[in-house]
Amino acid sequence: MNKYNYTMMCDFYELTMINGYFETKMADTICYFDVFYRTIPDNGGYAIFCGLEQVIDYIKNLRFTDEDIKYLESRKVFKRAFLEFLKNYKFTGDIYSVREGTPIFPNAPVMSIKARAIEAQFIETYVLSVINHQSLIATKTSRIVRTAGKISVSEFGARRAHGADAAVLGARAAYIAGAIGSSNTLADRLYNVPAVGTMAHSWVQMFPTELESFIKYCEIYPDSALVLVDTYNVLKSGVPNAIKAFNQVLVPQGKRPLGIRLDSGDIAYQSKIARKMLDDAGFSDCRIFASNSLDEYLIRDLLFQGAKVDSFGVGERLITSKSSPVFDGVYKLVATEENGKIVPKIKVSENVGKITNPHYKKVYRLYDRHTNKAEADLLTVYDEVVNDEEPYELFDPNATWKRKILANFRKEELLIQIFKNGKQVYTSPTIADIRKYCKEQMETLWDEVKRLEYPHKYYVDLSQKLWDIKNDLLNKEK
Amino acid sequence: MNKYNYTMMCDFYELTMINGYFETKMADTICYFDVFYRTIPDNGGYAIFCGLEQVIDYIKNLRFTDEDIKYLESRKVFKRAFLEFLKNYKFTGDIYSVREGTPIFPNAPVMSIKARAIEAQFIETYVLSVINHQSLIATKTSRIVRTAGKISVSEFGARRAHGADAAVLGARAAYIAGAIGSSNTLADRLYNVPAVGTMAHSWVQMFPTELESFIKYCEIYPDSALVLVDTYNVLKSGVPNAIKAFNQVLVPQGKRPLGIRLDSGDIAYQSKIARKMLDDAGFSDCRIFASNSLDEYLIRDLLFQGAKVDSFGVGERLITSKSSPVFDGVYKLVATEENGKIVPKIKVSENVGKITNPHYKKVYRLYDRHTNKAEADLLTVYDEVVNDEEPYELFDPNATWKRKILANFRKEELLIQIFKNGKQVYTSPTIADIRKYCKEQMETLWDEVKRLEYPHKYYVDLSQKLWDIKNDLLNKEK
Repeated sequence: MNKYNYTMMCDFYELTMINGYFETKMADTICYFDVFYRTIPDNGGYAIFCGLEQVIDYIKNLRFTDEDIKYLESRKVFKRAFLEFLKNYKFTGDIYSVREGTPIFPNAPVMSIKARAIEAQFIETYVLSVINHQSLIATKTSRIVRTAGKISVSEFGARRAHGADAAVLGARAAYIAGAIGSSNTLADRLYNVPAVGTMAHSWVQMFPTELESFIKYCEIYPDSALVLVDTYNVLKSGVPNAIKAFNQVLVPQGKRPLGIRLDSGDIAYQSKIARKMLDDAGFSDCRIFASNSLDEYLIRDLLFQGAKVDSFGVGERLITSKSSPVFDGVYKLVATEENGKIVPKIKVSENVGKITNPHYKKVYRLYDRHTNKAEADLLTVYDEVVNDEEPYELFDPNATWKRKILANFRKEELLIQIFKNGKQVYTSPTIADIRKYCKEQMETLWDEVKRLEYPHKYYVDLSQKLWDIKNDLLNKEK
Repeated sequence: MNKYNYTMMCDFYELTMINGYFETKMADTICYFDVFYRTIPDNGGYAIFCGLEQVIDYIKNLRFTDEDIKYLESRKVFKRAFLEFLKNYKFTGDIYSVREGTPIFPNAPVMSIKARAIEAQFIETYVLSVINHQSLIATKTSRIVRTAGKISVSEFGARRAHGADAAVLGARAAYIAGAIGSSNTLADRLYNVPAVGTMAHSWVQMFPTELESFIKYCEIYPDSALVLVDTYNVLKSGVPNAIKAFNQVLVPQGKRPLGIRLDSGDIAYQSKIARKMLDDAGFSDCRIFASNSLDEYLIRDLLFQGAKVDSFGVGERLITSKSSPVFDGVYKLVATEENGKIVPKIKVSENVGKITNPHYKKVYRLYDRHTNKAEADLLTVYDEVVNDEEPYELFDPNATWKRKILANFRKEELLIQIFKNGKQVYTSPTIADIRKYCKEQMETLWDEVKRLEYPHKYYVDLSQKLWDIKNDLLNKEK
């Protein structure tokens, strides 16, 4: 799946536009595009960037097959010369990106693309679809994992994902953002996301009695005995039968059960009673797994009510980000080169929030040296250098009289180079490293920014130079 | 993409369970599973079944590669004999399904699987993920298309879909349910969904002026000139420049413009003024396309306010089914064979709505012979025959005193055989035929069932025989 050539996964207008550039001799005009997003899902305080590895695969595999070109010919929109040109099409530009697992904020570029018009425009659709999807799921997972605290969270949503690809890459994103594993075997096979799972209700139903089904399971998997106790009645039959099976099969072998799983009914009530039943039977080390339409809001309530759960399995509400299923990343032209000079471009809009930040940029994250907390992201023109040895005055780009002097800070550039002249210059980290990096990065955010509801708004500011350029362009367009 | 072997796209518990059946000599036990769903998205009155073709591809390509088996071995959970067995694994059972494009209702089986335990259990995850996804998008699209009425709807959501696969198969589902096309080129290339598209804002920004960008576009595409008029100011510059370009480039060639597209701001207001401007300039045949966070609710409001739109492009809210992004199809064991006899199975639950309908079944749709409208779906035991030559008494399975005698009806069996002993016995229709069938089927539903909000609840009833069996099983479990 990850090796498929997704070249044709483009909006048709990418093709009509690049054909247009080909026809008008604008194909070679160097363009600068930014990828950024505008709205944090679930009214949260941050998002998690994810999907870069799939962009890298896509860029490296970019090519039109003979069949693709035959299809395009059949559309009778493109001339022969353009179709011929596509035969040797490849990406030869530069791509910068924040690292996967980085917390990201609205309006700050997360990727920056510099390439010929005919290349830079074309890659928009795929890049957005993969970044939007995985960033969405990583963000949702991060909210859930933070809420669960010390209780582990596994991703269980494959069957409710938006297809197989969404299931597998969603599991990848969930793992990066802090889930400990996934039910999805292919996510393990392809991306080293630990796959977990034991039994469905059908296993229990296949046997004459629930007890027999548990006994058989314990016999086959004595080292990972986890039984699903809600096929008939959790407290009247499920938990008692689990205890019987553990005693009958595991205890004589000196083995301990892994756990029981609750998948319906009231998790708070059931888990508390089940905990007591297990403890009384000498299985205080037997863990309680819970999975039933969970998300960060229900988990918060369950924990608030003292639910005795040791591990959550979270399905449809994570893998679709049900309460907020769209990540609104966009891909916008911010500059072109004319006679070797970079000319900033802006998109004005009747919706003020949709006006873009022009120009080829750098993105700095500024950290307080004392607390090591991230204080602001600062967007500058590409050739500006922020000196973190002296105080820097930040201001709100929408209310310029609101100013704040940052002292004793250190800077980090967020956009790092991934492709240079079409060649990958970035060494992909392992998924374990990405996951670790994500966790470390989350530590740099103030708790106030990470609050589930009404979080503090993190600053994303423009340098004075960039703000002036934007303001000039806006005045020009009036 | 469609040819990928998705065998490993399974929840890990499918593997632990089938290994369990292998170990307990239950591998060959014949099992019957139903696929059905419980909740109609958006509180609507119907859903549209979609995704069967991908299930067929999956079943035909089912096999474990050497690499898959090596991975499974590395998990140290499975014994050699089982891994050897997987080398020649294939599906040898029967699958019945409703046709793609069929309106479907809660609790009525949409697929029925009969196979050895070791096969029937295994295919659950992939089958659900693909059916749930495409049925979700088809259902959402159907709502949008019905609301738009005579105004055409195109699917524009690739960049906000949950990845590339969700974009492409979502476009397929949208087309089946009535969209006239999609922005997605790969959906056209692979599934013959007509791909459409012209320009993004970046095209306009690439030129020194908006007017030049429109002129160039009209020169290159004189037969499909459609320009995006909201990069700067729709009514002050966009529409006037469009008219200038049409007059300058197209009129002298005797060509007519295809249209203008609005992508931000107030569509109702802008479209009415733009319509008048185009009419006054002699372009009353120039169509107005609109696309900006649309769904069935906003389209209803825009039309109610007299928006002058000729074609809607619907993006993120369709391709993610934003207001209701989960389709809750499930895969439940309903019977097993013991000594050649079919034994019905039930899953009880503390949530009454989660109690399953047991047994191997038939699903009849009953139509009024006079109106040709669908009146009810009737679930019967597999060996029952409903005689549509005489009146039939229906009753509400949850309130059995509510009874209704249906006379002058005709029956249709909804589940048709797709696989027989692992061989495909069904001839796949073209996507055009599926789309046509869907449209015809929608005609058989009462308008009251198709209402956006608070629709009439369509009857899904059990035969007396099936109800009795279910009731007996429930009493036994108490």
